[in-house]
Amino acid sequence: MKLLDRIQSPRDLKDLDGAQLAQLANEIRARILQVTAVNGGHVAPNLGIVELTIGAYRALDMPPDVVTYDVGHQSYVHKLLTGRAAAFDSLRTYGGISGFPKRSESPYDLFGTGHASDSLSVALGYALARNGDADGGRVLAIVGDGSLTGGMAWEALNHIGHQGCRLTILLNDNEMSISPNVGALTGYLGRIRLDKRYWGKREFVQKELATRGGRLGRAMLTAGTRVKDSFKHLLVPGVVFEELGISYVGPIDGHDIGQVERAVKSAAAAPGPVIIHAVTRKGRGYVPAEDNPTVFHGVGPFDVATGQVKSSAGSPPKYTQVFSDALIREAELNPGIVAITAAMASGTGLDAFRDYVTARGEPQRFIDVGIAEEHAVGLAAGLALEGRKIPVCAIYSTFLQRAYDQIISDVALQGAHVVFALDRAGFVGDDGPTHHGLYDLSYLRTIPTMQIMAPSDEAELVGALHTAIELDGPVALRYPRGSGTGVAIPDRAESWEVGRVRVLRAPDKDAAGDGVPAGEHSADGAAEDTQPDAPTDARTCAPTVALLAVGRMVAAATQVAKRLDADGIAVHLADMRWVKPLDGGYLTRVARESDLVVTIEENSVRGGFGTGVMEYLADAELTVPILQLGTPDAFTTQGTMEQLLHDAGLDADGIYDSVCARLQRVTGNGKQGI
Amino acid sequence: MKLLDRIQSPRDLKDLDGAQLAQLANEIRARILQVTAVNGGHVAPNLGIVELTIGAYRALDMPPDVVTYDVGHQSYVHKLLTGRAAAFDSLRTYGGISGFPKRSESPYDLFGTGHASDSLSVALGYALARNGDADGGRVLAIVGDGSLTGGMAWEALNHIGHQGCRLTILLNDNEMSISPNVGALTGYLGRIRLDKRYWGKREFVQKELATRGGRLGRAMLTAGTRVKDSFKHLLVPGVVFEELGISYVGPIDGHDIGQVERAVKSAAAAPGPVIIHAVTRKGRGYVPAEDNPTVFHGVGPFDVATGQVKSSAGSPPKYTQVFSDALIREAELNPGIVAITAAMASGTGLDAFRDYVTARGEPQRFIDVGIAEEHAVGLAAGLALEGRKIPVCAIYSTFLQRAYDQIISDVALQGAHVVFALDRAGFVGDDGPTHHGLYDLSYLRTIPTMQIMAPSDEAELVGALHTAIELDGPVALRYPRGSGTGVAIPDRAESWEVGRVRVLRAPDKDAAGDGVPAGEHSADGAAEDTQPDAPTDARTCAPTVALLAVGRMVAAATQVAKRLDADGIAVHLADMRWVKPLDGGYLTRVARESDLVVTIEENSVRGGFGTGVMEYLADAELTVPILQLGTPDAFTTQGTMEQLLHDAGLDADGIYDSVCARLQRVTGNGKQGI
Repeated sequence: MKLLDRIQSPRDLKDLDGAQLAQLANEIRARILQVTAVNGGHVAPNLGIVELTIGAYRALDMPPDVVTYDVGHQSYVHKLLTGRAAAFDSLRTYGGISGFPKRSESPYDLFGTGHASDSLSVALGYALARNGDADGGRVLAIVGDGSLTGGMAWEALNHIGHQGCRLTILLNDNEMSISPNVGALTGYLGRIRLDKRYWGKREFVQKELATRGGRLGRAMLTAGTRVKDSFKHLLVPGVVFEELGISYVGPIDGHDIGQVERAVKSAAAAPGPVIIHAVTRKGRGYVPAEDNPTVFHGVGPFDVATGQVKSSAGSPPKYTQVFSDALIREAELNPGIVAITAAMASGTGLDAFRDYVTARGEPQRFIDVGIAEEHAVGLAAGLALEGRKIPVCAIYSTFLQRAYDQIISDVALQGAHVVFALDRAGFVGDDGPTHHGLYDLSYLRTIPTMQIMAPSDEAELVGALHTAIELDGPVALRYPRGSGTGVAIPDRAESWEVGRVRVLRAPDKDAAGDGVPAGEHSADGAAEDTQPDAPTDARTCAPTVALLAVGRMVAAATQVAKRLDADGIAVHLADMRWVKPLDGGYLTRVARESDLVVTIEENSVRGGFGTGVMEYLADAELTVPILQLGTPDAFTTQGTMEQLLHDAGLDADGIYDSVCARLQRVTGNGKQGI
Repeated sequence: MKLLDRIQSPRDLKDLDGAQLAQLANEIRARILQVTAVNGGHVAPNLGIVELTIGAYRALDMPPDVVTYDVGHQSYVHKLLTGRAAAFDSLRTYGGISGFPKRSESPYDLFGTGHASDSLSVALGYALARNGDADGGRVLAIVGDGSLTGGMAWEALNHIGHQGCRLTILLNDNEMSISPNVGALTGYLGRIRLDKRYWGKREFVQKELATRGGRLGRAMLTAGTRVKDSFKHLLVPGVVFEELGISYVGPIDGHDIGQVERAVKSAAAAPGPVIIHAVTRKGRGYVPAEDNPTVFHGVGPFDVATGQVKSSAGSPPKYTQVFSDALIREAELNPGIVAITAAMASGTGLDAFRDYVTARGEPQRFIDVGIAEEHAVGLAAGLALEGRKIPVCAIYSTFLQRAYDQIISDVALQGAHVVFALDRAGFVGDDGPTHHGLYDLSYLRTIPTMQIMAPSDEAELVGALHTAIELDGPVALRYPRGSGTGVAIPDRAESWEVGRVRVLRAPDKDAAGDGVPAGEHSADGAAEDTQPDAPTDARTCAPTVALLAVGRMVAAATQVAKRLDADGIAVHLADMRWVKPLDGGYLTRVARESDLVVTIEENSVRGGFGTGVMEYLADAELTVPILQLGTPDAFTTQGTMEQLLHDAGLDADGIYDSVCARLQRVTGNGKQGI
């Protein structure tokens, strides 16, 4: 890999000739495949942008010129060209190179992206900050066509066209976001691409009009702004951008380094904003990725030679899969169910739902709105309020942040029955802090009338979804990335009682017999070892701790309960199921019977489930020591799920240690700390 | 008002002839002026939409046809035509007619709007829910040109064009949102309006091309999709909408009932989506509103004869005004300061800032992005990260909900120094639940690295703003709607120590001498009566309560403290100033010294300031009774500030009663409730 090793900064690209550039592109592709085959990653987007990146970077002088990426999953080539080729083996690993631009990683990483459609706003901010500063350098925003679906990008385009300041947008149009794009804009860009074939004819028309248009030509030339604009429309296909005040160049071949370089050079020299429309192919140069760009958008380890993705054979099914299957079963019984995704049909498991309803002749029951979470939620509100549909919005926890206001204003305030299925709630692993879903319990809990469930395993997920569909008003269920615990999936989905806890362990007969049987979730094997042990005399005077857990933390809490039990500590253990409303009766009982209440969640300790328990207990005038365990009030890093949970003190060892240390202080000092 | 009294439903409009319709329009205008002159309200938007509403409603059959409004402040005419003319005197009052559509108020109020740009999504939801249902009725969305700036509207347009389903969009283009619109789209619509003059010529060109275009005409007809489209562009000015797959009709005169009626009728019969571009004049028919549409957008009581807005003479300056003045003073000293508004220059007080920097020849220091909160925050991130600017985003609390994800991802995760100035934090009064700012402390507190201040009066606001500008990273300050307390504004802004409380009262000398002087805010009169009284022997055994308040609640807490003191109860009283980070040292001290800790805030009790105190005390292992006072976890209503605060138990009487009742239980029962 001789050439790539010589590139320490984008300026080094300028010395290479055509043959060397072609070789460099090959080396970059090989390096990306080599590393992602082991670490997983965003293969197809990066293979598709190799020449585009090289061409653009040859045209710029960085610094002072700067580049922002949209979403940022296509920044591997950027990283390889900015001094990180050697360290690239650590891509997406704990302590390693991030899969997204990251400011702390390199001065070339202007902006740590992750969510879509924000790069144009940031680029305009840079451009305006440098307004009138001749030494300020040029600003280039690289954005995919999928990201243009997002409303924030349109807000920025509207403002960029209005400002008219120097700014280049490089539109990387591969006709896909993650799945093939939807929406009218996609059709529009498609017509432009198609239109290339007619360019010859258009040139003829232009010439004819100029030379021999006669009275007609003259009339068209003088018939006012609209008709003048229509000449532009004849000559320039990007009329929508032109109408917004942004000069359009293209379409160009994004795999032709020279074409890209020339276009960026001339655009960057223009006095106002320019959009360059470059057409690329996702996965370019690697046949398995070209053939299956959706699979190779973001992928786990794979075999480079065959393109075979390495399966995690023997693992329990993923939560996404269980959700997908369960939603199809619900949709069989309930014709009102409509599923909505924001460009994540595959990631949310709704692709199977789409195929199912399409096969039934009901394709309208699946809606992909593109990268447009705000609209997805507003649309769901409209569908629900009309009265005959039950929309299920399947959106990752981190992306639903985009629609916080819509959940409040369009759904909850209207009393609309919309089901929010939040996948990737909690740590997401190697994608890191831009994608962790650590705030949903906090931001959803603030919303009046919102009902929130956190199923603790895949069997529970089935019940939670069924319950959400049966209820009224806004309902959310959140579940983690990755595989379930391996419990059996019930044949028939259970209906959950609203706001009722699932008791897994109680310290003695009286408590267990208090109308709430322990281990009532009888269908799965996990409950078997959660039956309360017979009370022993020794335990009646032992300290009592209540372990209240939600979601994936229930499994860890169950392990901790066993260890505490072995230590002679009396334990209340509950899978809380509901984050809102909380089970007040249960909380009151365990608060009265316990020396310490412990809350455990895979969500920020600011405003999350544990906070809700505190609010409830304060309101109920129950003053009891509380230990709140959750993710820290700080941005965290990337790594395996195990590493991240360990760092947060949320593995069984960490929880056990925290509980024991605190319990010792509580029981040692009485009303401690006061 | 004979005619208006006869209109009980939109169907009654169909019996009226032209003269009667004109009379009805006059009656509606008179009724709107009569009521808003007393109650205040959105005068100009409603005067501008009288004929448009009448014309559209004559064209429809409601039900089953339905209408959604964007923002909804222009729904007064709708309300008068749907059976609410008699009750209209109660507009915007406690228990009265809402100033916005409200589902509980009328079956004609499809959707309770308030925030911008969501009506198209909701309308599409209705349309899709009725897909294939011939009896389903038609769907009309009435949207202002200002709302089209919002990204959510573009997301919906993209989807509507893609779906191609039957849906009519009535674009009410008055060239304004609240202030004159900005953005490239505005320029585009303006060019269309202007273009009307050239229609005659365009018709000529069309005819010529069809009849005698010869080889040129034939070439244009056969030169591919783009050239074919360009014919459309010649004939139809709304090419941007057409390119997105939405048929464009217009521009039409929105004050011509017949034109509007015909356009809506034919659009509603079309098989696919149609946008009707109607041009109207804001404030139409009332000269003061036509002359000052920004003033009369939303206005308090005024004199109908003169158009003179009734001043609240003698009231202290409004928080908005104090913020505006203070920001200008900061900008004088600090050339990096740039102010950003999302179409609310007047509402946020940034109009004065705009005038100030413009007069200095630095107009680029003021940026109005239009109704586009997401872009506003992303832009601010870019401006800040470039390194030389300090962006101050002035956005109402309720509207900043739109940018929750951007604050997390684009600002906080990047470590960008952006100042968020949240006006209208807390109850907003007569605009009601769509506009109350009751969640900002909750949603901002969940964000790592976010720093949050809640100044308690207008003098404190000056210090908070100064401090926010001096700090680094994301900083928010939130302040209420309405007038301050009348304290003197300091000549020189104070710098606040990060996370340090302002102690207003301490029970005895030891506490007051603990390094934190009480009443350190010496410049204002309010602090005078907050000096700790001399300790008395009687009080040493008295119960002790800590009143921890933020924002406007500090004044009420101060009154309560006096009454508790008179009752012989020892009181810690603090203006907390900071919601994040909290003053841990102070909290530890008062928790140890108090029998009850009371938190008081004008924000939801779910996740707010009081919750933060609970989290801190739990983390510090301090177990003490906590009484959390704030707004309820429920959607509240409209009314005067006094009514709303009273209902929430947040006036001095309510707080006093809550504290006394709880204190009695705490001190009566020892470790109560357990």
